[in-house]
Amino acid sequence: MKEVAGELEAYFAEAFPAEWDMPPALLESMKYSLDAGGKRLRPLLVVAACESLGGSRKAAIRVAASVEMVHTYSLIHDDLPAMDDDDLRRGKPTNHKVFGEAMAILAGDGLLTHAFYVVATLSKDGLLPAEAAVAIVSDLAEYAGPRGMVGGQVADMEGEQGTTDLERLEYIHLHKTSDLIMFSVLAGGRAAGATPEQLEALRTFGRGIGLAFQIQDDILDLVGDESKLGKKTQSDVKMEKVTYPYFLGIDKSREEVRRLSEEAKSAVANAGLNSAETLLAIADYLVERDR
Amino acid sequence: MKEVAGELEAYFAEAFPAEWDMPPALLESMKYSLDAGGKRLRPLLVVAACESLGGSRKAAIRVAASVEMVHTYSLIHDDLPAMDDDDLRRGKPTNHKVFGEAMAILAGDGLLTHAFYVVATLSKDGLLPAEAAVAIVSDLAEYAGPRGMVGGQVADMEGEQGTTDLERLEYIHLHKTSDLIMFSVLAGGRAAGATPEQLEALRTFGRGIGLAFQIQDDILDLVGDESKLGKKTQSDVKMEKVTYPYFLGIDKSREEVRRLSEEAKSAVANAGLNSAETLLAIADYLVERDR
Repeated sequence: MKEVAGELEAYFAEAFPAEWDMPPALLESMKYSLDAGGKRLRPLLVVAACESLGGSRKAAIRVAASVEMVHTYSLIHDDLPAMDDDDLRRGKPTNHKVFGEAMAILAGDGLLTHAFYVVATLSKDGLLPAEAAVAIVSDLAEYAGPRGMVGGQVADMEGEQGTTDLERLEYIHLHKTSDLIMFSVLAGGRAAGATPEQLEALRTFGRGIGLAFQIQDDILDLVGDESKLGKKTQSDVKMEKVTYPYFLGIDKSREEVRRLSEEAKSAVANAGLNSAETLLAIADYLVERDR
Repeated sequence: MKEVAGELEAYFAEAFPAEWDMPPALLESMKYSLDAGGKRLRPLLVVAACESLGGSRKAAIRVAASVEMVHTYSLIHDDLPAMDDDDLRRGKPTNHKVFGEAMAILAGDGLLTHAFYVVATLSKDGLLPAEAAVAIVSDLAEYAGPRGMVGGQVADMEGEQGTTDLERLEYIHLHKTSDLIMFSVLAGGRAAGATPEQLEALRTFGRGIGLAFQIQDDILDLVGDESKLGKKTQSDVKMEKVTYPYFLGIDKSREEVRRLSEEAKSAVANAGLNSAETLLAIADYLVERDR
């Protein structure tokens, strides 16, 4: 995890071409949130999936950077006063608290757009064939867009205790969180030239761990340790959000995390990958994590 | 213009795959702004540039739809309370006035993301080779992103009478407006397999008419007819914005529009296109327009 985070941050330092004439405040605002850290889970998944098939680390880091840009933009917009109205993110003031609301909207827009530049230019830069680059762009737009993460965000906003059922909550979790995780695994596979069968296995793996990750988030928000999480707990209860524990209770939710993780693991264990080791380790880590 | 607008709107009706499970309110909000009309100048430029080289109308309409999605997202975010705080756009209530601020932010994010889907899938759908699709994605991300339209938007926000000079105003106009117009012409060329020399000529044409278009906008805001424009004039004066007439006066600004338009025309007149007729007519229209 540390190795990938280090390479990712090195790439961020050069992600915006030096000769580009951009307003310095915009660059500063985008970098502020990009460099704020976090688990870098999605980048790790891209690299792990790519290397499970013997793909190139260099291409994987670029794809990893693009998914982290998309994840970061979604957090910036999510934190805005009109959305969740959060003042803190990973223990630091949120983007709009530092740069103002207008700049935060534009920094998010800039990161989202630039993510596509980073993937599309993989082909011009000789790191991937045009067919692979364009397939990754298409997936990113699908999983991050209106039927993916943005759709999940809207459904989450609309979700209310009393009117939302467990099926609808699964839709929210799958799209708000799982889609970008699924994309990460899939894109890593595409960057390594996965066969259609291997892509299918990676997709099943991504769906399972993505959903498990979000249910674990629900659980940690209820019973986690604030000092380890670096944020306040009980926020779902306060905001009257629907969660897995709300419907199933803590024990059954924990069971569901384990079941999804096992399901994910068996999908990649039998997919004929060169080495599924790191992917399997990530699936285990996600079940056990306490932050 | 009417023909392209008609085909574009027909494409919008099917732009979001019917089998996609999306929150209906999100689709409604995106469609509300997409269908609100406007001049459809950028789509027309894509089609005109593509057909000047004998390219396919079908591919051109898809690229045209993507640029109009990006243009529409930029208007939705631009109108937000934290930005220009506009209640009306093209005579109709702005997106956030109808759907609320959170949905307007997400509808913008959704349209921007989906624009890349529409271009990237041109290759899977057999309408363009992967190399052409990926080059158009890369251009779109560059011209709409941090060093393009988003950068121009930030510079515009920072621009103030007294501290901004004419050179900085040119930066604002070039990026805030001209970049997406330049992209339209360029992408039409790429969709038709233009040579590097032809792409260069189209780029010069796009830069010229893009800048001329924005200066004409400045002029119309000052001396235009509100009933023809469908919006209040004098807004730049009220907001104390820097404009070309502010620096040069009306007559010199008009002269600059004509000069840029002539320069643009001569770039494509000698580029060995099959037919530059429509492009030349658009350049003339932009100088004469009163709305």
